[in-house]
Amino acid sequence: MFSGVSAFPLTPLRDDVLDEGAFAALVRRVAASGVDSITVLGSTGSYAYLSREERRTAVRIAVENAGGVPVFVGIGSLRTSHVRALADDAQEAGAGAVLLAPLTYQAHTPDDVFGLYEDVTRNLSVPLIVYDNPGTTHFTFTDELYGRIAQLPNVASVKIPGVPADPDAAADRVAAIRDSIPASVTIGVSGDAAAATGLNAGCDAWYSVIAGTLPEPALAIARAALGGEAAAATAESDRLAPLWALFARFGSLRVVAAIAEREELVARGCLPLPIRGLDDVARTEVADVIECLGLHPAR
Amino acid sequence: MFSGVSAFPLTPLRDDVLDEGAFAALVRRVAASGVDSITVLGSTGSYAYLSREERRTAVRIAVENAGGVPVFVGIGSLRTSHVRALADDAQEAGAGAVLLAPLTYQAHTPDDVFGLYEDVTRNLSVPLIVYDNPGTTHFTFTDELYGRIAQLPNVASVKIPGVPADPDAAADRVAAIRDSIPASVTIGVSGDAAAATGLNAGCDAWYSVIAGTLPEPALAIARAALGGEAAAATAESDRLAPLWALFARFGSLRVVAAIAEREELVARGCLPLPIRGLDDVARTEVADVIECLGLHPAR
Repeated sequence: MFSGVSAFPLTPLRDDVLDEGAFAALVRRVAASGVDSITVLGSTGSYAYLSREERRTAVRIAVENAGGVPVFVGIGSLRTSHVRALADDAQEAGAGAVLLAPLTYQAHTPDDVFGLYEDVTRNLSVPLIVYDNPGTTHFTFTDELYGRIAQLPNVASVKIPGVPADPDAAADRVAAIRDSIPASVTIGVSGDAAAATGLNAGCDAWYSVIAGTLPEPALAIARAALGGEAAAATAESDRLAPLWALFARFGSLRVVAAIAEREELVARGCLPLPIRGLDDVARTEVADVIECLGLHPAR
Repeated sequence: MFSGVSAFPLTPLRDDVLDEGAFAALVRRVAASGVDSITVLGSTGSYAYLSREERRTAVRIAVENAGGVPVFVGIGSLRTSHVRALADDAQEAGAGAVLLAPLTYQAHTPDDVFGLYEDVTRNLSVPLIVYDNPGTTHFTFTDELYGRIAQLPNVASVKIPGVPADPDAAADRVAAIRDSIPASVTIGVSGDAAAATGLNAGCDAWYSVIAGTLPEPALAIARAALGGEAAAATAESDRLAPLWALFARFGSLRVVAAIAEREELVARGCLPLPIRGLDDVARTEVADVIECLGLHPAR
């Protein structure tokens, strides 16, 4: 279950209220595309900005609209007891797994983070994905800490932030992580620009931003890489370089939100304030890249 | 109102529940010490980890126990609409002012942050303190952004993260900020180790972690500095260097929590998990410093 492409859809708002219809439609589109799983309430799903009630509703909608595709659910929050409550909610609503990043306000020690995973996994009845996202959490895992956490009950996968651009260095990096964790725990790459390299280097899964809005090009990359056609995967990823460049400049969240807004999959202003959408100049650049690459979403 | 010492008390928990009695006693002690204001639900008050209900209760307790000393209230949250709700709650409970840091999960643009302050100040009926705390928010203000925000209605003060250690450089820094903001907006230093230098350099206020637990040494420094006795302020701050060294090593929050726990002002484990208290070795170091410097809290 923790291999292949996991798609991370937006959780769109409309006038600061969860846009239930648009979210359900996003989940249905992605589920129909053939992805292996759908992760709702990831960073692209704005989980950190939503209330417990909004998150509960979003999980319910996702499970109802996923057509049997496994739904993974982000349960991160700053306080351990709040994370545990969100885990309970997600499980009750039918989550196939939960995804947990160590959110910070005060800087964490490694023992804080280990304790968080220990406390949360203790009462869990579904698998957990360790979510390493230093760009948003400002916490840096070591391989030793991956290893300690991956031995806790129910830990099924580690979502790593990326791999080196050089293929040999990437293979070494994935091998080093593999040596640190139990064989049953999968490794999933994130950072979409690094996905082809990561999958070619031996990652089992791609936790994918772009697949949540444009699943087809993500599936093309992943199917090539996981089918042993490394060069084809790299070529398709290289073709999308203008998109990855936009992600690097503006952040993937604002770019996929602009794509989804332009294609009228969601209402304008779908992100939670204070996160402003892209300005009109940037939106034009995004539109040009989508046109040029032929990436219009299937309806 | 936005000058002198503003004391930042802990918001202690007991078994993950707000310890109302201990919090009320902390506020009463600090209010009786002669500080100029009390800022509850600052970073030292763990605001980012508490629920809206806990925060509403804490403000009520603080106002009831402050004996007329102005109570400022941290209203930070990741989402603009949540900040506005917290501002409403704080005002209804009698806050004298509100304090707002631009919390981040996704990285902010300057326009995101300006928009946050614009949206929050629009409907505010009490003054607002701009809270610049890059160590927790990972957002860096420019002086130009200070200037734009400080011109919004109700902005009364800017809490800056520190000043250079060199007195002349510190004076230049404070003068540069002063040139960027309206004359009616005060500048308050934070980072307790920098407080004497900051006040000597012309800051109007000290937003003080240590004053929330040990107000007397903070008042000694501030009274000297604000009374024109710069050398005496520096000498008293230098005397506390072992305490500032502990703050630098472990973070001020964990150190003041350990002090308050040792003195039985709060229950052991007063911080919200996953933030673990200091281990026993570090607690011994803290106790030695408190003994050596003669800093036992007044009862």
